[in-house]
Amino acid sequence: MKDVSKLLESRNTVRVVDATLRDGGLVNDFYFTEEFAKALYMTNVKAGVDYMELGYRADKELFDIDKFGPWKFSDDDYIRKIVGDNDTNLKLAIMADAGRCNYKQDIHDRKDSPVDLIRVATYLHQMPEAIDMIEDAHAKGYETTCNIMAVSTAQMDEVAAALELLGKTPVDCIYIVDSYGSLYPEQIQRIADLYCSIGAKYGKSIGIHAHDNQKLAFANTIEAVGDGVDYLDATYNCMGRGAGNCAMELLLGFLKNPKYKERYAFKFVEDYINPLKEQGVVWGYDLQYLATGLLNQHPRNAIAFTKDKRKDYAEFYQEMLLLD
Amino acid sequence: MKDVSKLLESRNTVRVVDATLRDGGLVNDFYFTEEFAKALYMTNVKAGVDYMELGYRADKELFDIDKFGPWKFSDDDYIRKIVGDNDTNLKLAIMADAGRCNYKQDIHDRKDSPVDLIRVATYLHQMPEAIDMIEDAHAKGYETTCNIMAVSTAQMDEVAAALELLGKTPVDCIYIVDSYGSLYPEQIQRIADLYCSIGAKYGKSIGIHAHDNQKLAFANTIEAVGDGVDYLDATYNCMGRGAGNCAMELLLGFLKNPKYKERYAFKFVEDYINPLKEQGVVWGYDLQYLATGLLNQHPRNAIAFTKDKRKDYAEFYQEMLLLD
Repeated sequence: MKDVSKLLESRNTVRVVDATLRDGGLVNDFYFTEEFAKALYMTNVKAGVDYMELGYRADKELFDIDKFGPWKFSDDDYIRKIVGDNDTNLKLAIMADAGRCNYKQDIHDRKDSPVDLIRVATYLHQMPEAIDMIEDAHAKGYETTCNIMAVSTAQMDEVAAALELLGKTPVDCIYIVDSYGSLYPEQIQRIADLYCSIGAKYGKSIGIHAHDNQKLAFANTIEAVGDGVDYLDATYNCMGRGAGNCAMELLLGFLKNPKYKERYAFKFVEDYINPLKEQGVVWGYDLQYLATGLLNQHPRNAIAFTKDKRKDYAEFYQEMLLLD
Repeated sequence: MKDVSKLLESRNTVRVVDATLRDGGLVNDFYFTEEFAKALYMTNVKAGVDYMELGYRADKELFDIDKFGPWKFSDDDYIRKIVGDNDTNLKLAIMADAGRCNYKQDIHDRKDSPVDLIRVATYLHQMPEAIDMIEDAHAKGYETTCNIMAVSTAQMDEVAAALELLGKTPVDCIYIVDSYGSLYPEQIQRIADLYCSIGAKYGKSIGIHAHDNQKLAFANTIEAVGDGVDYLDATYNCMGRGAGNCAMELLLGFLKNPKYKERYAFKFVEDYINPLKEQGVVWGYDLQYLATGLLNQHPRNAIAFTKDKRKDYAEFYQEMLLLD
C-alpha cells in the first residue's frame, strides 16, 4: 500500500508533458490552426506545464508535406512563428521517430533552435538507431528522452537489456509507452519497478505515456507517479490517437504542486478542444479501441473501423479475436 | 505490489452486478422500453453477469408515478412481465433507499417476488433505518446488501463504527460507494482494507460502486477486486448518473473467469446503448463532473449544468471552487 502522503506531496522531480499537438495531431493529420497552437502554448505556460511537445520532426523525403499539417515536421522556423523566443519556464520538445527522421540533417544545433528536448521514439528492435539519435541530439546540446513503444508486447528481459544499453547513453529520461492501451495498473507497477530500478542505477528519470483504450490512461499515469515515475505525458481532454491519452485536466487536478493550475485546462478544453470535436475530429474511448486494447493489438484496425464509420462493434471484436 | 497471479485468477467469490436500469435510470427518469429491459436481461444472462439490479422500489407517496418510468418503482408484477419466472442463473436485485421506501408495505415476501436481493442504500446518518430495512428484508427471505453512500465525505472512524454495527446484522454484503467519483485508487485500497478487515471478522462480503467523474470507475473497481472486494457494480458503456459508472464491457474483459463473456456486452452497447445516446440521453465523463469529483461534491450542480446545456466549464469550476 502506498504511503498516504504521496497523494498530498508535490515531488519536485515531476514533469508534466503536454503531447496534444503531437499525439492529437495523429487524429487530424496535424492540421491545427496557428491560433490553436498559440492558445495551447499560452495555456501550458499559465497552467504550469513543464514541457510542450510540438510535433514530429518527420523526414520530408518519406512524408509528403502536402498531406500533413505543419506539426508533422515541426520546422524550427515554424515553431518560432508560434512561440517567438519562448521566454518562459515552459520547455519545448519534438518527437523524432527512429527510421522516420533524417536527424543528422534535420535536427540542428540547440543554439539555433527553439527546441529544448528531443524525444526519440523507437521500437525495441530499432534500439541501435535510437541510441545513435540520442547521442546525436545530446552532442547538439539537447535534453533527450527515449520512448520505447509497445512495451505491452515486449519480453521484459529484452526491455531490461534495452534499459541497460540506454543507461550507458546520455539520455535523460526513458519512457514506458503503453501504445496499445493494453496494460492494467498492476502491470504498470511491475514495469515501473523495472524501469525505475535500472534508471536509478544510471541516474536516469523515468516517464510514462499511456493510452485510454481501457479508460486507464489516467489511472496508469497516477499509478506510475506513485511508483517513482517523473515524466508524465498528457493531452487536453485526452486528444490523441485512437482512444486518446491521459487527460491533462485530470492530471493537473491530481498533482498537488501549486504551480499546476487545472483551471486553465478547463478553459482550453472549453474554447479549443470541444470545438474540434464539434467539427467532427474523432478520438476517445469507444469499443473498437477496447477491443484492440484487450487483445494487446496495435490500434490500426480500430482506427480503420472509426474512419469507415462502422458501428458493428461486436462483429469487429469477433474479427479481432479471429485474426491470425 | 499485488501478486501477478491476481490478474489471471478467477476468484469464485466475485459477483458482477449490472446496475444499468437503476443508475442509468437516473439519467432518463427510468423511461426504458420493455424491449430494452428484456434485451438487457437476456444480455446479462448470456454474458454470465451474476446480479441484475432492476431499479428502485420507491415510495409512491413520495414520488409521482406519472413523472417516472416503471423502474423507479420496480413493482414485482412489472418485473415478472420482463423476466417471466427468471429460470436462469442471473439473480435479480432492487434498490431500497433509506427514507424513500415504504419497505414494510412495498417489499413482499421473497416467495411472492421475483427479486432475490434487496440493496439498501443509505447515508451514514440513516444507519438505524437502514439496519431496520436489512432486518426486514432478511426476515422476508431476501439476500441483502448495504450500500453506504458518499464514503468520500465520511470520517473513517464513523465508517468503521457503521461497519461494526452492520457486522452484527444479517446483511450479506457491504458496499463501498464513491457517489461523488472523488476517490483515487490509492484511497480505494485503504478503504477496501478497512471494509475487508471488518467484513472478514463478521463473515460479510464487500462490494464497490464507483463513478467515473475522474475516469477512475473501472480503475477503482479493479483496484478493489485486487484488494479482496467481491461484489462489483457496472453498467453498459458506463450508463449512470452524471459521469456514469464502471463500464460493464471493461469489467467483463478484465475478469478472467470464462463464464464472463464480454462479447455480449459489445453487442448490447451496439444495439441498445448507442441508440440511446443518439436519441439525446446524456451521461459520461465531462469537465463539469470532473469539477465536482475533484472538489468532493455531490454531482447535483454538474447535472444541472448539463441539463442547462451550459458549455462554460471554466466558469462552472470557478463557481464550485467559490461555493460556501
